[in-house]
Amino acid sequence: MKKNNGSKLKIIPLGGLEQIGMNITVFEYEDSIIVVDCGLAFPEDDMLGIDLVIPDVTYLKENIDKVKGFVITHGHEDHIGALPYILKEVNVPVYATKLTIGLIENKLKEHNLLRTTKRKIIKHGQSINLGAFRIEFIKTNHSIADAAALAIYSPAGIIVHTGDFKVDYTPVFGDVIDLQRFAEIGKKGVLALMCDSTNAERPGFTMSERTVGKTIDGLFAEHQNSRIIIATFASNVDRVQQIINSAYKYGRKVVIEGRSMVNIISIAQELGYINIPENTLIDVEQMKNYTGEQLVLITTGSQGESMAALSRMAAHLHKKISILPGDTVIFSSHPIPGNEKAVSNVINELSAQGANVVFQDVHVSGHACQEEIKLIYSLVKPKYAIPVHGEYRHLKAHAEVAQSLGIPKENIFLMYSGDVMELDEDGAAVTGKVHTGAIMVDGLGVGDVGNIVLRDRQHLSEDGIMVVVLTLEKRTNQLLAGPDIVSRGFVYVRESEDLMGEAREVVEEALDGCLSKNISDWGKIKSTIKDALGDYVWKKTKRRPMILPIIMEA
Amino acid sequence: MKKNNGSKLKIIPLGGLEQIGMNITVFEYEDSIIVVDCGLAFPEDDMLGIDLVIPDVTYLKENIDKVKGFVITHGHEDHIGALPYILKEVNVPVYATKLTIGLIENKLKEHNLLRTTKRKIIKHGQSINLGAFRIEFIKTNHSIADAAALAIYSPAGIIVHTGDFKVDYTPVFGDVIDLQRFAEIGKKGVLALMCDSTNAERPGFTMSERTVGKTIDGLFAEHQNSRIIIATFASNVDRVQQIINSAYKYGRKVVIEGRSMVNIISIAQELGYINIPENTLIDVEQMKNYTGEQLVLITTGSQGESMAALSRMAAHLHKKISILPGDTVIFSSHPIPGNEKAVSNVINELSAQGANVVFQDVHVSGHACQEEIKLIYSLVKPKYAIPVHGEYRHLKAHAEVAQSLGIPKENIFLMYSGDVMELDEDGAAVTGKVHTGAIMVDGLGVGDVGNIVLRDRQHLSEDGIMVVVLTLEKRTNQLLAGPDIVSRGFVYVRESEDLMGEAREVVEEALDGCLSKNISDWGKIKSTIKDALGDYVWKKTKRRPMILPIIMEA
Repeated sequence: MKKNNGSKLKIIPLGGLEQIGMNITVFEYEDSIIVVDCGLAFPEDDMLGIDLVIPDVTYLKENIDKVKGFVITHGHEDHIGALPYILKEVNVPVYATKLTIGLIENKLKEHNLLRTTKRKIIKHGQSINLGAFRIEFIKTNHSIADAAALAIYSPAGIIVHTGDFKVDYTPVFGDVIDLQRFAEIGKKGVLALMCDSTNAERPGFTMSERTVGKTIDGLFAEHQNSRIIIATFASNVDRVQQIINSAYKYGRKVVIEGRSMVNIISIAQELGYINIPENTLIDVEQMKNYTGEQLVLITTGSQGESMAALSRMAAHLHKKISILPGDTVIFSSHPIPGNEKAVSNVINELSAQGANVVFQDVHVSGHACQEEIKLIYSLVKPKYAIPVHGEYRHLKAHAEVAQSLGIPKENIFLMYSGDVMELDEDGAAVTGKVHTGAIMVDGLGVGDVGNIVLRDRQHLSEDGIMVVVLTLEKRTNQLLAGPDIVSRGFVYVRESEDLMGEAREVVEEALDGCLSKNISDWGKIKSTIKDALGDYVWKKTKRRPMILPIIMEA
Repeated sequence: MKKNNGSKLKIIPLGGLEQIGMNITVFEYEDSIIVVDCGLAFPEDDMLGIDLVIPDVTYLKENIDKVKGFVITHGHEDHIGALPYILKEVNVPVYATKLTIGLIENKLKEHNLLRTTKRKIIKHGQSINLGAFRIEFIKTNHSIADAAALAIYSPAGIIVHTGDFKVDYTPVFGDVIDLQRFAEIGKKGVLALMCDSTNAERPGFTMSERTVGKTIDGLFAEHQNSRIIIATFASNVDRVQQIINSAYKYGRKVVIEGRSMVNIISIAQELGYINIPENTLIDVEQMKNYTGEQLVLITTGSQGESMAALSRMAAHLHKKISILPGDTVIFSSHPIPGNEKAVSNVINELSAQGANVVFQDVHVSGHACQEEIKLIYSLVKPKYAIPVHGEYRHLKAHAEVAQSLGIPKENIFLMYSGDVMELDEDGAAVTGKVHTGAIMVDGLGVGDVGNIVLRDRQHLSEDGIMVVVLTLEKRTNQLLAGPDIVSRGFVYVRESEDLMGEAREVVEEALDGCLSKNISDWGKIKSTIKDALGDYVWKKTKRRPMILPIIMEA
């Protein structure tokens, strides 16, 4: 780390603000750039057919020579999910704690990038030097093990980035968040604190993960005569550990079901983040050797995702497991906003099959509530506050908390993605804007679906399509074939023969009009057909299917 | 009402179970049928492009001679919304309380049915005779004024149907629910109770509507220096009354905004269900004559509906009203399951524009919680319990409440739509099934969109469409024009020229193969093209657009 020679530190979020997910933030000092996190976002409702969304990293590509590495705070999708896509264009080393690296490697394997990606495991308390920066990993608690906050030492000052965190005094695995270290760094003088805002609207303290273990234990005691199925987040290894502990205590065998659950638990087991007693885990195939009371299934699907194991069981679509009357099904989760209805549908299906569904109070959040946010501020005592990780409403609530602690309003910055903030001891301000955006991934295509394609999908989804085809003789413009009309997603044709017959007449009339007037501009012919047919259909049905005229030449 | 001559009463729900909305229940005794409620459902997420859903009333049409009338419990869409569609096929009189009839007439006007529909206003406490039935309207409380429970007297026994209700000891308008009458009828001996299940999962009592008034009053006191915008349900006239009361108290003028809000409030005002002090209401155009502190806007959009007034204000799409920094925006509502994300998006947009958003605890439910359900059971003391109005999970929770009150399990019936329950003093059982279903309304089309059309819309929405057109000479099968490929909603064509070029080659090859083998079956040619192109596109993109080959003959 060099002495400050008057340059300012730049902080540039390339994503993660104005939306859930896609966390990625650039820290730049002179010719050094480090990137904190590289997450994906799940598609919004209007992104039809899109699988996932990744950040536009044009800024990194344009400054590729400066970029020293990715520093990752923890292994959730919204922090690591875009890495395999971005590394193909910005191939720099990746630094993270052990479990996080394990989860990243799992992704790199799928994308065939293991060989070409440098990566390094960093322990809590360790630091790395990347160009002008020194980055220290600080132990935190979160809903996935091995989460880290970062102290980013730059010549312009120290930035503390909490990552996603909560304060868990009695964590299931490993140590409590390293509050002492936050305090020590705070004593040195911290320029800015970038702190998790997810729960900034909630007063009080987030409960310890261990309290969920007690609840689960109670449910096992209560439901000793029934098979137990528990759905939770695949990445919440500590939750799975506690379920396994209860299973062991009550002499039940454990089946792990759902691809991501199997994947993550096997990585966690390999790396020593979960402790499964011998002869506890069994395969789905072995279930038949046990009665329901001797079994617990731990499964994906706690968000009602239609393809996840629990949803498939509920909908009779699971090949190996059916819901049986008397089963106890526990949702160890809260619905993420937007998933409420899907979860409720699964609860209905399970109930209708005679399962006993438990869905309240078997979960705690992984994010800090207001009192924890206040605690971190009081330890770190930053000059500037930059709320991160949340929608605007959460950032705003966070700003109010910071203000209530005495941080002056002008020292609190609600940033937007792409904002360039320059700061040092003498001041902080948003001084510019870089290009950012959301790149949509659909199948193998990265970025080949844009707004026009999405708008077409939206249009097609609402009222379907009518294709009008006809063949004209090249030179004479004489009609050789058609016009034919084919529709999809518009009306059920067999019950709408009159409508389709009249529609054809409307098209013929429009076409005759053009041809008799010797209009030879095919664009003009197409738009005439489109307008005439569109008007007719709207008048008859009050629908607006996409109308696609195709003229072939022969 | 005749003496029972041994016939049983049939209860047949044609909708309203297994789903939210679309409440409609047949009561049949010998040659008399009455129908309680006639509601619509809002489309599920997978019903792309559908406007609303109405029940299939084939059973009523087949028994049209028996049908004596519709008896409506209250004016919410899920109880009256299908009437204008169903009345076109089953034109029988409609009976309801005054406000309910007012809201129904508003619908009949839109559908040009006012002249042809008989309707009669019934007061609470009054009874009507319809064939073998006598139906008594009993005063209840709900989130819309003039709600009624029904006592249905039949020769086989008395059924009490609560409609949607809560117990509000201090209602804003009119009287408390007529608990004495429930008790009196209970004393006579009630065969079955059909009771609202919406909140059957919630312990305790639903708070009085009046408590919301106090909260609103407090918010007016707190935000005296800012403009206030309150979003709530258009049909909750009492809520609007309380907002107007606070506005009057604090000397603010009131603007009512949003089509359904304007509509319902003007009906309520005309019929005397709301009391607006003179000179309180002003038009949007007059707003400019007042400062923000002198104004309150009451608006639609509390569910984040994209076309509602508040959402348009938040998205800068409202022609006359913009959100200003410092505005206080109050959501006097809870998000209905499925709307959480839409509401949250609007809150974010409002916050980002500098509004102060209040969205917690400015609402109470209109439905009975567990203790209220218990109260009704204890007054009515029915022999049989038939939980209604709720998803399966709610019906099940209701059943558990009923059982906890001592009703034997075998006397509690969780019915499905279409079930025919036959009952009298000697017994009750589901003895058959009638045809039911959901009919989708899209624009002017009622029932012309079915599963095939929906499946096509779903397919189109995910990966778009590729249309392959070609013209063959009729007799020789010689290729005269094409093959051309046109896509929509698949890829952005300009950036995918290679792909589209290769796709054309694939189609040409498949076609050549067919033609060189003298295959003249066009169905076979189409499926060959479809398979070849589908395979190619999947291999290249991992997408499955709809592929639509069209062969024209010349």
